[in-house]
This record gives sequence, C-alpha cells and structure tokens, in this order.
Amino acid sequence: MKIELASSYGFCFGVKRAIEIAQKYENSATMGPLIHNEDEINRLKKDFNVGLYSQLSDVKPDDTVIIRTHGIPKNDLKELKKGVKKVINATCPFVTTPQNIVKNMSKDGYSILIFGDIEHPEVKGVKSYASDLDDVHVILCPEDLKNVKFKNNKIACVAQTTKKKETYLEIVNALILKNKEVRVFNTICDATFENQDAARDISKKADIMIVIGGKSSSNTKQLHSICLENCKNSYLIENENELESSWFINKNYCGITAGASTPDWVIQKVIDKIKSFKP
Amino acid sequence: MKIELASSYGFCFGVKRAIEIAQKYENSATMGPLIHNEDEINRLKKDFNVGLYSQLSDVKPDDTVIIRTHGIPKNDLKELKKGVKKVINATCPFVTTPQNIVKNMSKDGYSILIFGDIEHPEVKGVKSYASDLDDVHVILCPEDLKNVKFKNNKIACVAQTTKKKETYLEIVNALILKNKEVRVFNTICDATFENQDAARDISKKADIMIVIGGKSSSNTKQLHSICLENCKNSYLIENENELESSWFINKNYCGITAGASTPDWVIQKVIDKIKSFKP
Repeated sequence: MKIELASSYGFCFGVKRAIEIAQKYENSATMGPLIHNEDEINRLKKDFNVGLYSQLSDVKPDDTVIIRTHGIPKNDLKELKKGVKKVINATCPFVTTPQNIVKNMSKDGYSILIFGDIEHPEVKGVKSYASDLDDVHVILCPEDLKNVKFKNNKIACVAQTTKKKETYLEIVNALILKNKEVRVFNTICDATFENQDAARDISKKADIMIVIGGKSSSNTKQLHSICLENCKNSYLIENENELESSWFINKNYCGITAGASTPDWVIQKVIDKIKSFKP
Repeated sequence: MKIELASSYGFCFGVKRAIEIAQKYENSATMGPLIHNEDEINRLKKDFNVGLYSQLSDVKPDDTVIIRTHGIPKNDLKELKKGVKKVINATCPFVTTPQNIVKNMSKDGYSILIFGDIEHPEVKGVKSYASDLDDVHVILCPEDLKNVKFKNNKIACVAQTTKKKETYLEIVNALILKNKEVRVFNTICDATFENQDAARDISKKADIMIVIGGKSSSNTKQLHSICLENCKNSYLIENENELESSWFINKNYCGITAGASTPDWVIQKVIDKIKSFKP
C-alpha cells in the first residue's frame, strides 16, 4: 500500500522553521512560548533542554535566547541583543514582512493601520516598528475605524498573518473611500487554505485518508470534512493508538494530512504504525 | 425675497476652471472639445472666437492651443508644445493627478491598473503617462481582470474620475487577494455627490427651490428629487422662460441649484428673471 502525505499539512512553514532552529540550539531558551503548542514545547525542553522565559528581566548574560515565531517588540529585541551572549531570531518570515513594512511606511510618512488583535504578541511586535507610535492604529473590525484619527491621508495597511481576508477588505474599502492613497499589503498567511487545498487534492486520489489532529480542533475538523467529501474512508485520529488495522484491508493508497497544531513526530508515529500493519 | 445658490451646483470645478481659461484667450482653439457641452462650446466660439481642432495635424504654428479638461496623451502634448506658439493647459487638476500617479508609479516599477473606458479621452491621456506601456492595463469591470497579465506583484491603481466607487472597490479587492502590494489611489471625483449634498442642505432652509437642468438629465432629476424631499415647492426648469411669477408669491427664501451640464450663464438668466418679479 502506498502511503503519502498531503503536499501541505500540519505545522505551517514558520512553526516548522522555528522548531528546526530550536533543535539546533540545545540548552538555549525562548523568549515567550516558541509556538502555540504545549506538548511540543515540553518535548523541546525534554529532548533539547530548550527553556522558556516569560520576561526580559529573567534572562542571564550567558544565555542563547531564541525569538518566538510571533516576534517581539523592537526595543525588547534591542535590549536582548545588548544583554545576552547570543540571540537567534526564529520570527516567522511572514511576520518579519509586516514588521519591515510598518518600519518603512512609517518612515515614509504614511499613517499605519494594523488589522489584528492588539494583545497578540505578533501585533505588539509589528506595531513597535513604527517610527511614529502615535500614528499606528490597531483595529479588530471595520467599526473600530470610527475611533481612529490618522495624521495623514496616505495610509499603509498590514494585517496580522492569521486574520480573515474578508474583514481586511471591508476595512481597507472604508479607508479607500475616505483617503487619497491607501497602500494595502496582503500579509495574511495562506497556510490554513494551503492545507485544505492539499487535503482536497490527495483525498481525490486516496482510497483511505488519515487526518491527524485534535478532535475539538476547528481546522482539523475542516480537513476531515473536506476529505470525507472525496473519500468515504476518511478517519480523524489524535494519535497512532487510535488506528485500526481493519481499516486498511484491501486498500492501495493511504493519504495523510494533519491539523495546524499537530507536530511532525506525532505524524511520524502514525505512519510507522500504519507501515507495521500486515497487508 | 432672499435668493441663494447652493454651495455646490452646476459645472464641476474642472469645467468651470476650463471655461474661465478659455474666456481669457480670445482667438485661441481647443484641442478636442473643451468640455462635453455643445451650447457652451458654441458660446465660446461666438463670444470669444475659441475654435476647435479635432486632430494635431490641423494646428498652425501661430495658434494658441488650449488643452481640454480631460487632458491629452503625453506625446500629443509634447508635439503640440513644439509645434505651436502657446499651449494653455486646461486639464482638470483631478485628471492631472492620475496622470502624475501613473507616471511616478510606473517609474517606481509598479504594474498599473486603470479602471475606466479605454476609448475615453481622459483614460487615453492618463494611460500615456506610463513609462512601460506594456504594463498599464485598462479595465471596465472586475471580470476584465482575467485577461490582464501584470509584470509585477506590486500594483498601483487609479480610476477615471467619473467612475463608480463600488465597482472600483470590487476591482481592487480582487487584486489585493492576489498580490503582495496594491496601492490604491482614490481618483474618483466627488462633484456629483457634492452637488447633491449642497442641494439637500439648501432645500431644508428654502421655501422655494429652482433646479435648472435638462429634464432628461439623470443627475438633474436626482437633484430635483432630493429638493422635493425637503421643500414641496421645488421646480425643475431648463431655462428662465419656464419660470412662473405665481410660484414666488409669499415666499421668503429661494434656493437655486443646477445640473452638471448647466452653464452659469443659463443660471444667471434664471436669477435675473426671478429678481424681476414684483414681490
């Protein structure tokens, strides 16, 4: 039986990259949780002794500190670079992009609008790159615009990478009607949609689909539902212990996908277990 | 009786300005019709001997040539400047703006999208300012985008000044979803809406409203309908001959507005006639 992974699955590019970086630096520590998955953070601690700091004042001069995928505010990064031996930047490149845009647009005299959650570490980081902190505005919905006073009628817009495109368009449309120039940067990451597209593709070819992820995870359930549309033998499991060998009798092509918070090692255990079944 | 004009009425800013310019240059000629109103062009010919050329090859070295409100293509302007004694630019500033944007954005390596009618003189002029004429694209509706191949994923957008905002937003939204950066310049002129807002304001104060314009003109009828909402004594007339003195008996405040193609001299004749009525 052929076993094949979807062309895009599980952790997004930025999360995968951050974990690879963390694994290279044994005995380091991350500034804030590296990613939003506790199991994986525990594994990095256990296997690579990667620690976790929650505030700048805790770091020690001899530390190697890894910047989390969501990035950190500009001044925290500056302070960290002055205070510790080595700083490794694992900020997702899709997050570095809006940081740089905000930096450059603010310098060029644009008012800045960030569509995102003001409390989210990614947004805190992106916002910090504006040269005029009084003219960078964070909103969650189009209605919030009524409380925003821009200094210019040239506006540059970025979005938190995980936000909904439709809402972003509503916001920029309102701005376009009221301002001379609106410079819209599409900084929303397509990872979720890529996983869905890939699951759709592979489930059309497979005669059995294994979807790995939390049963209460919204994006995992969406993947399962997409697979079921194309392959009636689609199973949603959390780990290898839920696999049943009977599912694979007379099957020729097993497709595999995984939710956005499923680590690769969980996926690998599933693949190993499937391979162990006698045909 | 107080007689007052709406704060915005009749010809838009650019048309008014062009006519003032033409009146200053007796015995000149315009390159293409100065504005889209034949009566007014005939009047300029009769009163100021302002002629009309329809092609560049007709101009003579001793001519003073006036550029029409819609502008002309860049190379035509260059040729004209070489070939005649004096060139007066009556291009509406709201049309010069997208010309300059296209020039600068094209130079900065942006692909250019123009929302407008490719056959319209304004659009022909704006388009001509791109440094890469193979990467400036004119479309009339969002569906046209499927035939457009941009060279870059940085797009700058302008709109013909008289186009509908809602359609412009549909177009730029499609672009935002597919490109890294979309720079949206709001080049749509608000003249029509300004006349409507001003008609609304004055008709709330007046006890008689006179709306001057063609009875088949869509924007004039819209003005009349707005006035009727606030002032039941609102009359739509084409010229002073339609006025009836009985309308003004016991009235204290006469408001006046006019459609976008109504010349000021028609409006003035109406005002003079109203003033001549015995109270």
